[in-house]
Amino acid sequence: MAKISVLGAGSWGTALSVLLNNNGHEVRLWSRFQEEVDTLKQTRELTSKLPGVHIPENIDLTADVKNCVETAEVIVLAVPSPYVRGTAELMAPYVKDEQIIVNVAKGIEEKTLMTMTDIISEEIPAAGVYVLSGPSHAEEVGRGIPTTCVISGPKRETAEYLQGIFMSPVFRVYTTPDTLGVELGGSLKNVIALAAGTADGLGYGDNTKAALITRGIAEIARLGTKMGAHMETFYGLSGMGDLIVTCASVHSRNRKAGYLMGKGYTMQQAMNEVKMVVEGVYSAKAAKSLAEKYDVEMPIIMEVNKVLFEDKPAADAVRDLMIRDKKVETPVLPW
Amino acid sequence: MAKISVLGAGSWGTALSVLLNNNGHEVRLWSRFQEEVDTLKQTRELTSKLPGVHIPENIDLTADVKNCVETAEVIVLAVPSPYVRGTAELMAPYVKDEQIIVNVAKGIEEKTLMTMTDIISEEIPAAGVYVLSGPSHAEEVGRGIPTTCVISGPKRETAEYLQGIFMSPVFRVYTTPDTLGVELGGSLKNVIALAAGTADGLGYGDNTKAALITRGIAEIARLGTKMGAHMETFYGLSGMGDLIVTCASVHSRNRKAGYLMGKGYTMQQAMNEVKMVVEGVYSAKAAKSLAEKYDVEMPIIMEVNKVLFEDKPAADAVRDLMIRDKKVETPVLPW
Repeated sequence: MAKISVLGAGSWGTALSVLLNNNGHEVRLWSRFQEEVDTLKQTRELTSKLPGVHIPENIDLTADVKNCVETAEVIVLAVPSPYVRGTAELMAPYVKDEQIIVNVAKGIEEKTLMTMTDIISEEIPAAGVYVLSGPSHAEEVGRGIPTTCVISGPKRETAEYLQGIFMSPVFRVYTTPDTLGVELGGSLKNVIALAAGTADGLGYGDNTKAALITRGIAEIARLGTKMGAHMETFYGLSGMGDLIVTCASVHSRNRKAGYLMGKGYTMQQAMNEVKMVVEGVYSAKAAKSLAEKYDVEMPIIMEVNKVLFEDKPAADAVRDLMIRDKKVETPVLPW
Repeated sequence: MAKISVLGAGSWGTALSVLLNNNGHEVRLWSRFQEEVDTLKQTRELTSKLPGVHIPENIDLTADVKNCVETAEVIVLAVPSPYVRGTAELMAPYVKDEQIIVNVAKGIEEKTLMTMTDIISEEIPAAGVYVLSGPSHAEEVGRGIPTTCVISGPKRETAEYLQGIFMSPVFRVYTTPDTLGVELGGSLKNVIALAAGTADGLGYGDNTKAALITRGIAEIARLGTKMGAHMETFYGLSGMGDLIVTCASVHSRNRKAGYLMGKGYTMQQAMNEVKMVVEGVYSAKAAKSLAEKYDVEMPIIMEVNKVLFEDKPAADAVRDLMIRDKKVETPVLPW
């Protein structure tokens, strides 16, 4: 059994702490905010985001990052993507050589176009950085609903060690060497979720949504393979799988914001209504920059950007996608 | 504009007739049953299966197969899969050399393990047989909801001709050379839809369903590529896309039957309750036979067969899938 520190006491960090504790590990759950720690110690429940999920007494709750990092065999970094760089800076002084860090945040830094593991590796060059991703609503993992994920990183043996750490009868973990593919898929799927939500808001049906999902992941795969990732990964749990969960969910902020834009809201009005960070809005910009940088055709990503930032009516965007030139579905295949 | 005969006046045949008529073609819609033709002529609506969709007056309704075949430049075969062989026999005497037939039925013949285009080509060797498939609920196509499909067959020029025939501002068609992949994906996805429905019936969440969909299509792709089809196709509109639509739909018989089995019904009780042919039950057998014939590991397909035909409790099947040996997600990728 391992000593594990989970940094970030949001819904995902908390659900993973409960899972790891159930697996018999010694778990420490960190929040940057002492008052958050104090409240959690009293309630033993993340009432706002993970109601009904008890945080067992033997999970140690703390705001002491030094102790968290120094005592851990495995560190799980579960803060929202905008805080990954800052938290990595905070951890850096205490991290040992080859210390294992598992990132579970999804996103691409807008200015640098870096993935989360890139950022962590830049801030903490000594660490071995891994990523856990897949179709995994925290609320369901917290309730013990059967869930699958993938884990990826530089060393196969370490990935398999982590697979063993996380795996349980209700949490199945696969390994994959394609870290870049896992991170790109997890980040860019939010843009497609926005588009799928928009189609729902326009009153379109399952056919339209399935088309956007399928062609959306195809263009993400087109970009990703050009960047050096593997097609299989985009069609796996961390790409297509996670996208399916996001598009099916009534709780997804990305889908919800898209839905409102389909109903005629501007991006800003939708953001105000959803009242939380809509990751897909930032990822849409990053995806556009990447498409231009790598010279890849991404028609859905481009239309999402026009709807978001140029006030193009969503119905016009769908129409323009439907009446594009006639295409072959898979241009790589010989006839 | 082309002369097109659509054989089979079910929901899909009727919706396609309306689409083709809207595209300006001269459309004939055939049913084997004269009384069905007479009713349709009076109501101009397929009241039971496609309520609210008007069948325009210039669509010719008929039970005369000879005339239908002889006058058509393109024949669309839209009968349910168990009737494809019989209808092809009926058509055969009137088919000209190189006549274009577009099959839209999905299924694998249980005894021969043949696809629908295989069957048609066997019964009518002179014809050029194509297939149209994708995420396309007939009710939505009938209502003009934006929809995408793929068309595939032996000749690229003919596939592109057919792409032009079907394509409209609300019906986007892609071409692909991988006919086998299109047909296998369309048929086998029903087995995964059964499994996804079962997970819903067991009260599991979106995580479990996304896992079954993603890993399900991965094993279908594993089988299909060994049979000579291409991976990209299984992750395209006719594979993953169609599976997403089927799993999302509350109308899908496959999903519904699975749901009931998740609630504890036996296969026979579920079939009695659904009161219609549940394609996935037959495809499950065919898939198992194909897995054995081509020696491919298909854990989800195997568990679905055990639940269907050996009365294995569905919850035990899910548990056994979750606790299998630890795996790599994409064994083909180097670490």
